[in-house]
Amino acid sequence: MPEKTARDITFVTCTAPVNIAVIKYWGKRDNDLILPVNSSLSVTLHQDQLKSTTTVACSAHFKEDRIWLNGKEENINQPRLQSCLKEIRRLVRKRRSDGDTSTDVLSLSHKVHICSENNFPTAAGLASSAAGYACLVYTLSRLLGVEGELSAIARQGSGSACRSMYGGFVQWHMGMQADGKDSVAEQVEPESHWPELRILILVVSAERKPVGSTAGMQTSVETSSLLKHRAQAVVSTRMDEMILAIRQRDFSTFGELTMRDSNQFHAICLDTYPPIFYLNDVSRRIISLVHRYNHHYRETRVAYTFDAGPNAVIYTLQQHVSEFVQVVTHFFPPETNGGEFLKGLPVGSVSLSDELTRAIGLEPLPKGISYIISTKSGPGPQTVEDTSLHLLGPDGLPKTST
Amino acid sequence: MPEKTARDITFVTCTAPVNIAVIKYWGKRDNDLILPVNSSLSVTLHQDQLKSTTTVACSAHFKEDRIWLNGKEENINQPRLQSCLKEIRRLVRKRRSDGDTSTDVLSLSHKVHICSENNFPTAAGLASSAAGYACLVYTLSRLLGVEGELSAIARQGSGSACRSMYGGFVQWHMGMQADGKDSVAEQVEPESHWPELRILILVVSAERKPVGSTAGMQTSVETSSLLKHRAQAVVSTRMDEMILAIRQRDFSTFGELTMRDSNQFHAICLDTYPPIFYLNDVSRRIISLVHRYNHHYRETRVAYTFDAGPNAVIYTLQQHVSEFVQVVTHFFPPETNGGEFLKGLPVGSVSLSDELTRAIGLEPLPKGISYIISTKSGPGPQTVEDTSLHLLGPDGLPKTST
Repeated sequence: MPEKTARDITFVTCTAPVNIAVIKYWGKRDNDLILPVNSSLSVTLHQDQLKSTTTVACSAHFKEDRIWLNGKEENINQPRLQSCLKEIRRLVRKRRSDGDTSTDVLSLSHKVHICSENNFPTAAGLASSAAGYACLVYTLSRLLGVEGELSAIARQGSGSACRSMYGGFVQWHMGMQADGKDSVAEQVEPESHWPELRILILVVSAERKPVGSTAGMQTSVETSSLLKHRAQAVVSTRMDEMILAIRQRDFSTFGELTMRDSNQFHAICLDTYPPIFYLNDVSRRIISLVHRYNHHYRETRVAYTFDAGPNAVIYTLQQHVSEFVQVVTHFFPPETNGGEFLKGLPVGSVSLSDELTRAIGLEPLPKGISYIISTKSGPGPQTVEDTSLHLLGPDGLPKTST
Repeated sequence: MPEKTARDITFVTCTAPVNIAVIKYWGKRDNDLILPVNSSLSVTLHQDQLKSTTTVACSAHFKEDRIWLNGKEENINQPRLQSCLKEIRRLVRKRRSDGDTSTDVLSLSHKVHICSENNFPTAAGLASSAAGYACLVYTLSRLLGVEGELSAIARQGSGSACRSMYGGFVQWHMGMQADGKDSVAEQVEPESHWPELRILILVVSAERKPVGSTAGMQTSVETSSLLKHRAQAVVSTRMDEMILAIRQRDFSTFGELTMRDSNQFHAICLDTYPPIFYLNDVSRRIISLVHRYNHHYRETRVAYTFDAGPNAVIYTLQQHVSEFVQVVTHFFPPETNGGEFLKGLPVGSVSLSDELTRAIGLEPLPKGISYIISTKSGPGPQTVEDTSLHLLGPDGLPKTST
């Protein structure tokens, strides 16, 4: 329920999750509506470890729409932000013209103040814009009391944001319509479906990624002859196999498909002209480590996936987490006087057999990985009931700013 | 003319060149006959800088076929070596059964001693097996006095060896026949066609390549969904464009196609499962350097291509060589007490403008490149007339061995 203060400001605060694709989205068929060239599928990560938080305040006294991201005021006229605001307001108008007056607590002419922050570094390749736009759209919808196809609105902020509108395992259907109405996200299975699934984020570098994904995928669409083939001939079969693997909790198939799809995405980047590189030598060493580890056990126990940056996201099952973390720590010895190396869900400690480290047989690379975040799958966006957690103060301005 | 010694040993020594593909060969449709999934095209490098030398000796006194590579005796029963020997001898028999007796100087029952060496490090990613097999087949053909489709025989030693049978610009037609008779090399233009073309080999590392190309391409054929698409839908058009660019000496098109095809080959490697990586961070930095250099001049002045290893081969025109070498030296400062950084054809020295180095704007990486070999296109295999250069002594054994 939106909270009204003495100064007639209404506040709502929500959180939204990060998602990590296992069937990748790369390439738009419509740049304005953000319609993809292929469907994609992701796992929603738990918000206990990674989330965006957004407070939206609304008041008759506000003179203009404003937005603050991670403490810094940003330009509200950014086209994608405007798309989301416009689409949400259109949904409200439609609802009211349909005669539903239950939500008319707020005038559509009232301006909004938006304040958003992530509990993880932006632009570290952790899909911050997906969580951010999902959170914005969800918070606005709670404030204005609308429901409906919110994922199609989030999609217009940042394509993959539509997948952060649900928890668990989420497919973004590419859709066929020119207006994008059918390019929406759908939950394949909730997070409770596969409780043993674990996710480790291996943070390789917090440098800004060299080529932004928007510009990158645009160049790929224009220049890669392999991209079109992937979209038309590869993804659809792979999607069916992936959904089946998830339904059956078949980690071996899930893991192999995840790795193959990550590699194919980076292959498309390399086939782009000029080529785009997101993987670096540390990323490649992680890939090699994973294959050697799996080869040793003659089964796919861990799987990697990489987005538009060098960080690895590892999928595995609960029973393998502590050993694999130990393996990573062995082959990428952390900086001894750095911060904690392992964040997030606790991981038990085990000792490695010489046989295993010998079988992997890589040269250890000190400080190759900055830290690991241990997490699992979690729910979609949530409303924060504790009003003390609003990011905007009673005056409608950020409580903290930089 | 084969030389007979007092001990009734006949000697022939020949040299053969390295070739560097600009339309890459990756994937066989027949592993025994070495038939490729797509046609390819290469530039033959000049033997003044890089060559294989082979001496073959033949005598009624030899008890068995033997081979020495770079001073070390190797197993003559290696299947690909046997293929070449068998095919050459078949050609001789055919010639004789056709009634041509001009070449029956040697009995087919005589055994051969083969001694071969390269003037560059083997397995440094410089296609040593191509030059080696081309040289072997050419030398045997001179010894036994046969002509005919030698490239199809060299192909059975090492696929790309067929392209080293000619100088200049050489296409390997994939062919359609099951027996491989039409999978042969053909000269597109001789080396004299484009005298301004220059080639720089940037030796990044002399480490052995991680995955041999034979095993690598086999895995790609089995697992990459993009490889088949490349072979069926991409290469044929690109080949036509490449041949036209060469005929017209259109460097801009030649260079762009070369870079795109190199990138696509490495994309296929990445789409292979498990993925294959030949490029490392230094390779990627060279790619970035080339694109930034070209971007600064708003034209494609230099082009890179990479084979199954991290070394870059740069194509450019004579008028840009000295500046580009200076650029490479600036951004990859050589080890000061190492050997000479620039080998091969002399390169003039120029000073770089601040504007250019600023425009490139990369962080210099000391010792990223070990040395540069400067060369140009050259002729096909040659017979060495100077008998003092035979690699086998009068006893039919290597003059030097390790």
